[in-house]
Amino acid sequence: MKNKTSLFYFISFLFLSQFSYSQNSDSVMIRMIYSEALSNGKAYEWLSYLSNKIGGRLSGSPEAQLAVEWTQKTMETLKPDNVFLQECMVPKWVRGSKEKAGITSRLSATPLNVPVCALGGSIGTGSEGLTGNVIEIKQFEQLEEMGIEKLKGKIIFFNRPMNPTHINTFEAYGGAAGQRYSGAMKAAPYGAIGVIVRSMTLAKDDFPHTGAMGYNDTIKKIPACAISTNGADLLSDMLKKDPGLFFSLKMDCKTFPDEKSYNVIAELKGSEFPDEIITVGGHLDAWDTGDGAHDDGAGVVQSMEIINLFKVLGIKPKRTIRIVAFMNEENGSRGGKKYAEVALLKKEKHLLALESDAGGSTPHGFGMNGPVAKTNKIRSWQKLFFPYGLFQWDGDGDGADIGHLRDDNKDEQIVLMGLSPDSQRYFDYHHSANDVFANINRRELELGAASMAALIYLVDKYGLN
Amino acid sequence: MKNKTSLFYFISFLFLSQFSYSQNSDSVMIRMIYSEALSNGKAYEWLSYLSNKIGGRLSGSPEAQLAVEWTQKTMETLKPDNVFLQECMVPKWVRGSKEKAGITSRLSATPLNVPVCALGGSIGTGSEGLTGNVIEIKQFEQLEEMGIEKLKGKIIFFNRPMNPTHINTFEAYGGAAGQRYSGAMKAAPYGAIGVIVRSMTLAKDDFPHTGAMGYNDTIKKIPACAISTNGADLLSDMLKKDPGLFFSLKMDCKTFPDEKSYNVIAELKGSEFPDEIITVGGHLDAWDTGDGAHDDGAGVVQSMEIINLFKVLGIKPKRTIRIVAFMNEENGSRGGKKYAEVALLKKEKHLLALESDAGGSTPHGFGMNGPVAKTNKIRSWQKLFFPYGLFQWDGDGDGADIGHLRDDNKDEQIVLMGLSPDSQRYFDYHHSANDVFANINRRELELGAASMAALIYLVDKYGLN
Repeated sequence: MKNKTSLFYFISFLFLSQFSYSQNSDSVMIRMIYSEALSNGKAYEWLSYLSNKIGGRLSGSPEAQLAVEWTQKTMETLKPDNVFLQECMVPKWVRGSKEKAGITSRLSATPLNVPVCALGGSIGTGSEGLTGNVIEIKQFEQLEEMGIEKLKGKIIFFNRPMNPTHINTFEAYGGAAGQRYSGAMKAAPYGAIGVIVRSMTLAKDDFPHTGAMGYNDTIKKIPACAISTNGADLLSDMLKKDPGLFFSLKMDCKTFPDEKSYNVIAELKGSEFPDEIITVGGHLDAWDTGDGAHDDGAGVVQSMEIINLFKVLGIKPKRTIRIVAFMNEENGSRGGKKYAEVALLKKEKHLLALESDAGGSTPHGFGMNGPVAKTNKIRSWQKLFFPYGLFQWDGDGDGADIGHLRDDNKDEQIVLMGLSPDSQRYFDYHHSANDVFANINRRELELGAASMAALIYLVDKYGLN
Repeated sequence: MKNKTSLFYFISFLFLSQFSYSQNSDSVMIRMIYSEALSNGKAYEWLSYLSNKIGGRLSGSPEAQLAVEWTQKTMETLKPDNVFLQECMVPKWVRGSKEKAGITSRLSATPLNVPVCALGGSIGTGSEGLTGNVIEIKQFEQLEEMGIEKLKGKIIFFNRPMNPTHINTFEAYGGAAGQRYSGAMKAAPYGAIGVIVRSMTLAKDDFPHTGAMGYNDTIKKIPACAISTNGADLLSDMLKKDPGLFFSLKMDCKTFPDEKSYNVIAELKGSEFPDEIITVGGHLDAWDTGDGAHDDGAGVVQSMEIINLFKVLGIKPKRTIRIVAFMNEENGSRGGKKYAEVALLKKEKHLLALESDAGGSTPHGFGMNGPVAKTNKIRSWQKLFFPYGLFQWDGDGDGADIGHLRDDNKDEQIVLMGLSPDSQRYFDYHHSANDVFANINRRELELGAASMAALIYLVDKYGLN
């Protein structure tokens, strides 16, 4: 070296070539991850088993128990360092025999059957069923405007559609789902005897979509059902012509005492920082109406695929990676709560948690929440994902299961991330008999799994500090 | 104004506020275009008619004629300035009765039927059918290596799969489709008596996928069929165990003399630059195996939707916008050729042509080719499309129909663009009985139409100079 300037350039050169080597080796590894997932991925066959052989698997059901056993066994075939069950108590709600609903009106000689299903958690109607006049409502404020004298003894029909102009359908869902969760609690104080909720979908079809609804111990419990969007439009049209029509509803559904169930967890132990934990998961439970392929079988098998890809490609993580199939996301989130509770008890250090719970369609990116320095570091990697179509890195990362790690544990250092797949079709399937394996595309599912594996590869390699 | 510097700033301010007003008003208009398409779009109902009431509509068929009449009538309901038919002669190839194929082998007590269909343009097998031993080939070079003595009298089985590691499935298609188009021409000189081609899809299923194949007047014509991917895997497995198995094929297909048909064209006349033409289209013909919902009913109705959106939103174009439903893209491209020929004859000035012919799934962007200054101008608008998920602006824009405007007319000034929808599912449907309306999602189709309308709105407003 002749002088300091030369030394400076020489060091810069070393640094830059190191940097570009590193970027280059990452892009090579990420290419290998995608190629392996698209050529030999296991997620699709796993999901076929979970959907077609086990099917809908609501918490506390025999199918949920089968799913726990199958997931544990299948994780073990991948030979991670550890597979274990994490016990949690879960609600047990049972739909009973198929619901019946009909419209009796002077507009039709015979009663018209309409497709309905009980909302999850609803009480039944008793063997006599429920019959009453119907009041259609678009906004909760209308309840107060109409008052008890108009609403007493009536069935309240919440019929605000999802707004089709949102590009991301989750925003449209967010603007309508309150009707489903809170409808019964809002209507009961006005003397309503039951609730009908327009299905949360942008499709016009004959599938009623279930989903969790809530009660409050201080408010009378009244039965609540979902009606298909075609059924809702029919009912609304008929009400305009015959406001005195009668709606009858029969539901057998019932809540039983809590049952024992499990999160299923596989661990790859970190070689350098085993105490830094990266959690990746989806939820194993699924509504009984379909077979839970998109919600959330997809998320479970995509998470499991990460172990497979790491093993096949010889990726040995520095940090501990936990793949979690959470129980009971749909109606209680007890699995997510238990996982966070145990993490707190054991004083575990959770670096990042990633959830896939938005369906198995083509991935468009990741949403995230967490300390800005950390999310900025993650966003600095986004260009590595552009060749794979992942351009959206600005959404929220709050998953229902992983959110407890931050909220319950008051851990503001953790980064929460969510896979963001194409949302256009999701609510066509969500919580309905239409959420079946036939509506999964193999490549779209695999692209999601590969995207998650590539992200976790980077988080593990570089950490978040 | 106190001095020149102030004047400079004042002018800059005027310029910038003009610019930001303009950007802002564009983003407002684009938002209106998307909202209208997603709320009241007509494309989906149109496509339902074209797919479900008319169905497959190969050039020269009665269904193609019905499609021409329906498209003309439907365009007229939108009240553009002009709707007209542009005559062109098209090939007429008819599949005839359903094809039959079977494998006779010592591995199976009875012949095994496998799903096949004639490739478009193939000659038939004669009423006796065709039977022979099978030679499996992955690359054309193997023909030369094996030579005439090994191949004479044999049926050549082109079984190179599409490469699943390509992220954009059109690249995988590009790497395999030569087997379909050229297989018969390549095999016949070696004395082969027929050709079986693995279907061009990444799915493993029982749908054979048709598509155009070519002959050459100097080479003997031999029959060519597509076999489903499951059928191809079965045949390949059996060949490994019993290379002497026999494949039998019966096809009735036949080529008739050319028939008269039409491009269907609607025009919105430009108010300021009526001689500057912007062409937007898809192709009206579709293979007879399915109902042509994705290929390319989607492109036709999305193009027509632009007229509807412009009319409803009061957008009066400065330049002339032509919506073209091209005839005969699938097996001759005679409609595209005729359109370019007439444009040349009339010395028309074509600014830009946009084609939608990659299916009706969620749009991810646009591909384009043309003079760099013009494509750069178009790319300068891309941020306006990011809120709608269109991040991919780097692909090719060559459409089979619009390409003639550049190639046949030697017009190097024209910009050619193509809508780039999500490609993952496309080849599950393409040219098979699986290309049906049920596989169209309303919102995905509408997002594509809105994206095209928004782009054309900008091209019309600002021009390309």
